[in-house]
Amino acid sequence: MQRRCLDDSTCPVARSLDSIGDWWTLLIVRDAMLGIRRFSDFQRSLGLGRNVLVARLKKMVADGVMERTPATNGTSYKEYQLTAKGEALFPVLVAMRQWGERFLFAPGEPHSELIDRRLGKALQQMRVRDAEGHECGVADVTLVAAS
Amino acid sequence: MQRRCLDDSTCPVARSLDSIGDWWTLLIVRDAMLGIRRFSDFQRSLGLGRNVLVARLKKMVADGVMERTPATNGTSYKEYQLTAKGEALFPVLVAMRQWGERFLFAPGEPHSELIDRRLGKALQQMRVRDAEGHECGVADVTLVAAS
Repeated sequence: MQRRCLDDSTCPVARSLDSIGDWWTLLIVRDAMLGIRRFSDFQRSLGLGRNVLVARLKKMVADGVMERTPATNGTSYKEYQLTAKGEALFPVLVAMRQWGERFLFAPGEPHSELIDRRLGKALQQMRVRDAEGHECGVADVTLVAAS
Repeated sequence: MQRRCLDDSTCPVARSLDSIGDWWTLLIVRDAMLGIRRFSDFQRSLGLGRNVLVARLKKMVADGVMERTPATNGTSYKEYQLTAKGEALFPVLVAMRQWGERFLFAPGEPHSELIDRRLGKALQQMRVRDAEGHECGVADVTLVAAS
């Protein structure tokens, strides 16, 4: 399917999907957030072919989501790590995880859990809130077109 | 590229992406949240070919993200609307929108804005918070494997 380029859209959702909407990209971001840095470790975690992973990482570096850095072990290998722009995808990943936890697992079916290190407890559910902190649902918001 | 099926993964992010990771799906969800219900209106908004849109909507209905309902105008047409599971993608869409607003637009470049109806103001930034409400970054969390 031909994918339409939406990087000139005035809708930030469309632009984000244009940048990170590839299915693998967010899994690579997820792995990077969990501390994976080496090409071979991404490959093992994702079960991706070499060429596909090379292409994805290249695009992510070009998009400023990841950067290539010298290996931390002093060898000449390069590693990949998230930029500030990449790390800022954290709320997107957590919101996606929580939706999956709620709707895509049977009751009692085991899944991995993201906990905070300090309390060792599950994170709060992500909520959309207005400027005063009240929770908003879909019906509570409206879109203002770009002017 | 062959997409690996991850619907048996114990990672909720992987399962979510398996379900909604197609690029068009979240744009259809976005449009449905903005009140679009008719096939022809989705088609016009997204610039999608008829067959592609039919296939996407069919999958979304099968996945329980959308449902087909009788037309609100009393004709025999069907409309599409989000289920509770589909509406629960709201935090995912808002997090994605805010990331796009922050990183994919030049300063001063116009984009659409999502505001709440009551205050007429921009929404709060989505933040990941621990059980006590403290903001968490990537370094503050850890993953516990499915047991």
